[in-house]
Amino acid sequence: MSEAVESSYGALTVMQEGEFAGWRFWQGDPFETRSGPFFFRREDDGSYVSAFRAEPRHMNGGGFMHGGCLMTFADFALFAIATDALAGDHAVTLNLSGDFLGPISAGALVEARGEVTRGGGKTIFVRGLVTGDGQPALSFSGIIRRISRR
Amino acid sequence: MSEAVESSYGALTVMQEGEFAGWRFWQGDPFETRSGPFFFRREDDGSYVSAFRAEPRHMNGGGFMHGGCLMTFADFALFAIATDALAGDHAVTLNLSGDFLGPISAGALVEARGEVTRGGGKTIFVRGLVTGDGQPALSFSGIIRRISRR
Amino acid sequence: MSEAVESSYGALTVMQEGEFAGWRFWQGDPFETRSGPFFFRREDDGSYVSAFRAEPRHMNGGGFMHGGCLMTFADFALFAIATDALAGDHAVTLNLSGDFLGPISAGALVEARGEVTRGGGKTIFVRGLVTGDGQPALSFSGIIRRISRR
Amino acid sequence: MSEAVESSYGALTVMQEGEFAGWRFWQGDPFETRSGPFFFRREDDGSYVSAFRAEPRHMNGGGFMHGGCLMTFADFALFAIATDALAGDHAVTLNLSGDFLGPISAGALVEARGEVTRGGGKTIFVRGLVTGDGQPALSFSGIIRRISRR
Repeated sequence: MSEAVESSYGALTVMQEGEFAGWRFWQGDPFETRSGPFFFRREDDGSYVSAFRAEPRHMNGGGFMHGGCLMTFADFALFAIATDALAGDHAVTLNLSGDFLGPISAGALVEARGEVTRGGGKTIFVRGLVTGDGQPALSFSGIIRRISRR
Repeated sequence: MSEAVESSYGALTVMQEGEFAGWRFWQGDPFETRSGPFFFRREDDGSYVSAFRAEPRHMNGGGFMHGGCLMTFADFALFAIATDALAGDHAVTLNLSGDFLGPISAGALVEARGEVTRGGGKTIFVRGLVTGDGQPALSFSGIIRRISRR
Repeated sequence: MSEAVESSYGALTVMQEGEFAGWRFWQGDPFETRSGPFFFRREDDGSYVSAFRAEPRHMNGGGFMHGGCLMTFADFALFAIATDALAGDHAVTLNLSGDFLGPISAGALVEARGEVTRGGGKTIFVRGLVTGDGQPALSFSGIIRRISRR
Repeated sequence: MSEAVESSYGALTVMQEGEFAGWRFWQGDPFETRSGPFFFRREDDGSYVSAFRAEPRHMNGGGFMHGGCLMTFADFALFAIATDALAGDHAVTLNLSGDFLGPISAGALVEARGEVTRGGGKTIFVRGLVTGDGQPALSFSGIIRRISRR
């Protein structure tokens, strides 16, 4: 039901059905799968967008998306945004910082877009924005470090 | 089986059994309960420690604790550390930033300690450190904003 | 020689000569004037750009622009970018974070551009990018807090 | 008048007179010298403290220490705190983040203390606190990257 590229970090898999049919996700990442799963795809302009659908299980006690859920999705999006800079290499997150701009409710389409502000070397800098139904929710920046060549 | 203080944000509940018997946690926060649950208690010196036991479901595809899990726990710890400064008020996170210092494996005791660097007003500044079996894993800082008096 | 709008925080002054003739700057801010001065203006698209010319006095011991100089300029740029959101109100910086992307040498034109990711309320979120001769040098984000209405 | 250790990044010099006699500073860093100079020394417990005396030239238009001055001092303090971890190696700042906790007025003794949260490798993580006459002013964290062995 899915086409997967195997890796020691799990399998990059193409979703075959549902709202995110045709989008990619990482199979074999227990926390991410349980929190999401989160999906990403390459847009026509060459940028990468990440997305998932907000459900009640992503909310905090106040009925809005939990900050930890937003940060988990941002950590996922760092690597999606850096897909081309990583060129298949593994990497780890050194720093992740987020400004919480507005709430997201259950039912919203959650998306993350951003750009590599510096790539090319071993240290890759990314910044991005998470939106809920198009409204700003989290401004984030992160530093990831390439740890191996394929 | 549990004593709870009700609130619109869920119920602050005392765990009755298991490794964290006697520790408090928030019942009614879907994402946090599903990610954790995470626990906290007041130490004899008046500081607050947060903790949970790392399980395979908290790991990433590489077998180490997912950055999003660490950030979710840090977001929980912000409020635990600020318990006295908040004095029961509700608050929201404005900013959360984390430096990833080292990996945590399944089975480790994960703890967070820290201090309020500025409280008293509406804006509360916190910093802390997450450890896995006593080894540094995440250095974090956060800004939370009081949104209501009880 | 200059037209100034007086304020308890100094005078917003229009530069009358030199490379930045027609640009605005704050007169009466000792550290900023001494570090810069830094200038800003409104672009035709409604955004605000900040700028100054890198000189040997802005460099560190290695011959590149000092990180503190970049952060001082970013702190200036936060308020320039938030000009419309502030609408003349005073504000203080709550948080400033920067990722250092690349060096700037003496002689370069240093510019900062960015956007308000959330304004309107008392807490204003900004992010931006500093460049040297168009090359990325600092990715920054900041949170400022309105402290008074005019 | 001073004992200096030469380096391509300037000369680590011991102050011979005045309030900071016996403290070390970097000679040959134009922006830092002009902003400060800032001083540091090793304490009996092995930690490093950085310090300078606040003067009117460090203030903003409101009469309090400029955020850029605090961040410049924090950037200096990162390297002072990491003295032992660096063991004489050169390094660059990858990230610097600061939470502004309270104002500092002219005349105050400004100090920075902190710790290396992770050293040993090429990437060194530091966090610290700047105080003015003992009152919290800036909570900061930074990541520096070793770029060469001596």
